Amino acid sequence: MLNFKYYSPTSVIFGNDAVDKLGKQIAPEVKTVLFHYGGGSIKRSGLYDQVQSILKEKQVKVVELGGVEPNPKLTLVREGIALCREHQVDLILAVGGGSVIDSAKAIGIGVNYEGDVWDFFVGKAQPSSCVPIGVILTIPATGSETSPNSVVTKEEGLMKRGVKSDLIRPAFAILNPELTLTLPEEQTFAGIMDILSHVFERYFTTTTPVDVTDLMCEGVMKATIENAYKLRNNPNDYDARSEIMLAGTVAHNGILGVGRLEDWASHRIAHEITALYGTTHGVTLAIIFPAWMKYVSAERPDKFVQFAQRVFGVSREAFTDPAELANEGIRRFEAFLSDMGLPKSFKEAGLPADQLDLMTEKATLFGALGGYKKLEAADVKGIYKMAL
Amino acid sequence: MLNFKYYSPTSVIFGNDAVDKLGKQIAPEVKTVLFHYGGGSIKRSGLYDQVQSILKEKQVKVVELGGVEPNPKLTLVREGIALCREHQVDLILAVGGGSVIDSAKAIGIGVNYEGDVWDFFVGKAQPSSCVPIGVILTIPATGSETSPNSVVTKEEGLMKRGVKSDLIRPAFAILNPELTLTLPEEQTFAGIMDILSHVFERYFTTTTPVDVTDLMCEGVMKATIENAYKLRNNPNDYDARSEIMLAGTVAHNGILGVGRLEDWASHRIAHEITALYGTTHGVTLAIIFPAWMKYVSAERPDKFVQFAQRVFGVSREAFTDPAELANEGIRRFEAFLSDMGLPKSFKEAGLPADQLDLMTEKATLFGALGGYKKLEAADVKGIYKMAL
Repeated sequence: MLNFKYYSPTSVIFGNDAVDKLGKQIAPEVKTVLFHYGGGSIKRSGLYDQVQSILKEKQVKVVELGGVEPNPKLTLVREGIALCREHQVDLILAVGGGSVIDSAKAIGIGVNYEGDVWDFFVGKAQPSSCVPIGVILTIPATGSETSPNSVVTKEEGLMKRGVKSDLIRPAFAILNPELTLTLPEEQTFAGIMDILSHVFERYFTTTTPVDVTDLMCEGVMKATIENAYKLRNNPNDYDARSEIMLAGTVAHNGILGVGRLEDWASHRIAHEITALYGTTHGVTLAIIFPAWMKYVSAERPDKFVQFAQRVFGVSREAFTDPAELANEGIRRFEAFLSDMGLPKSFKEAGLPADQLDLMTEKATLFGALGGYKKLEAADVKGIYKMAL
Repeated sequence: MLNFKYYSPTSVIFGNDAVDKLGKQIAPEVKTVLFHYGGGSIKRSGLYDQVQSILKEKQVKVVELGGVEPNPKLTLVREGIALCREHQVDLILAVGGGSVIDSAKAIGIGVNYEGDVWDFFVGKAQPSSCVPIGVILTIPATGSETSPNSVVTKEEGLMKRGVKSDLIRPAFAILNPELTLTLPEEQTFAGIMDILSHVFERYFTTTTPVDVTDLMCEGVMKATIENAYKLRNNPNDYDARSEIMLAGTVAHNGILGVGRLEDWASHRIAHEITALYGTTHGVTLAIIFPAWMKYVSAERPDKFVQFAQRVFGVSREAFTDPAELANEGIRRFEAFLSDMGLPKSFKEAGLPADQLDLMTEKATLFGALGGYKKLEAADVKGIYKMAL
């Protein structure tokens, strides 16, 4: 185990009565709230009205900024920063999925920064303050409700980049699984792929031994996969929605990754597909992960052997060759993706194959990727090719 | 899954360089620190001098209060409260195991309370403030380094009682597994039993489904048992010490118990043994848990069937009767305790059998115990008897 620091101070309020508790989470000293959200779904569901009514009761001034798109855009972040400065906002309330939360975080760190907020995303500056952030989550996927991460897309040049700082971990996160009962199928299963990916990025490591966290990772993966099947059979299964929502938070609050080298190559490789084609984040992960697994497992099958056995219950006895055992785990994961209706390749997703060089160049702009196996540009292109 | 709130704000600094980072954890506004510890072990190990030297470098005023005994006593807590008031202490630094940390927490909530601090332990009052607490952990066991719990013994009447409040969760916890390499055998394995007990109290629940947390509980149990065997073979195994130290924190920071009814009967039943005979907390848990398991499993074998299969790998096929399968899991747990050199009964611990009525009366003073099965006084006495 490596030395580490772990800090996850977000208050998680979970359950079918969680939104009712919003008022209690807003500190008495809060005077002005930026109510940040996406499109019309929270208006149709009644959540918008419920939030407005609670904020009115708390007698805080409400500044609204809707219109966050999937893969949140820098232009709207800048608009949010201007609004916060103008109205002296002291709480940003993000109501929605990961895009809304990531947009709120980016706004939060930009408000008291004199330079351009994009500086944080290209490593030119480190956040030194953030307006407190509250969350009402409507899509379990990114884990942004407790994570220290924000990913934003700069429209100019289609650059999708992230920032990481403990300062942007939300103060509170309200998680009501009922809000997810009506999610469209693609959002449900792309979200589940996103959740699994956050475990994968931690699980596939060269650090050994990491017994406690490996077993916890495997538990979260198994519970996620099992409950994904339940939702495939019955999207209205509140219990399964609850397990997925909890898994989404645990997968990315950091506890599964303590004391180990993490990977994150697949995220960077997948990001470039979204940046070019606007493909849903979780879908790009379904496209890239099987290819990444096959590519790196060919060189280092050890952790994939464990994955096959412990997550998918593949019997060691059935395979004399460890590489074949590892491949069987990857095959079962691919079968899971198919069962969930997710594309596992560019072809299945209907994406063109003619921009691999551009994507490779952008993904490796700041150097090699990954931890389990270090990936140079040629490796990254190899993974894109395997994913065609 | 039940509705829940989860909040665990402690900064965990983990690794063989963790103590060096103490200075960074002390906020600039801290002027006076209460340095709280137990006996001479931290002086012998050099930790005492290291802490003094870091505090000197930070130029804070240091008030010392050593002498915390196992099962921390109310008298010393009151002394600490008086010291904090006299010197306007703004950080209590607990250096030691769970007893020192629990004592520090009790002092912390007493400082600004006008009544008697014991009020919090008998439910007469709820803490409304706490002096910030920092921890340097030397014994992985109680999980008090991130938990919201403190257990203190009132000498008069030998009452051992607990208080629970998010206010007493430490601000930071410094965990260096190297500090545990020289722990005596009994402290090592009694601590491991304590860690397992914190998972048991959450795992054995009537709440279903709880897939994510069940699988995480099972992972932490398996990793703990596996690494306990490693330490039995080689107490100097830094990696195994690390896994145990991490398991101890995860087992009791709350995440394994979210959304489920917890039990805690065994802790109350075991506490009365310590109160009467001063027996180490972890040892009393080794005495009581097998008896509790047999007693409640006879009526509700379901979770014990899962425990046998998933934690100890007992094959379902080998047993036609679920009760027998459940019992096999309990037998394997008992074998583990024997392998660790822990007593599994009053007899093995050399304790007399003549105070069962008194212990039963005290354990059930505030009513029935437990969640998995509600235990009235007759049940509690039955468990003591099974543990003889």
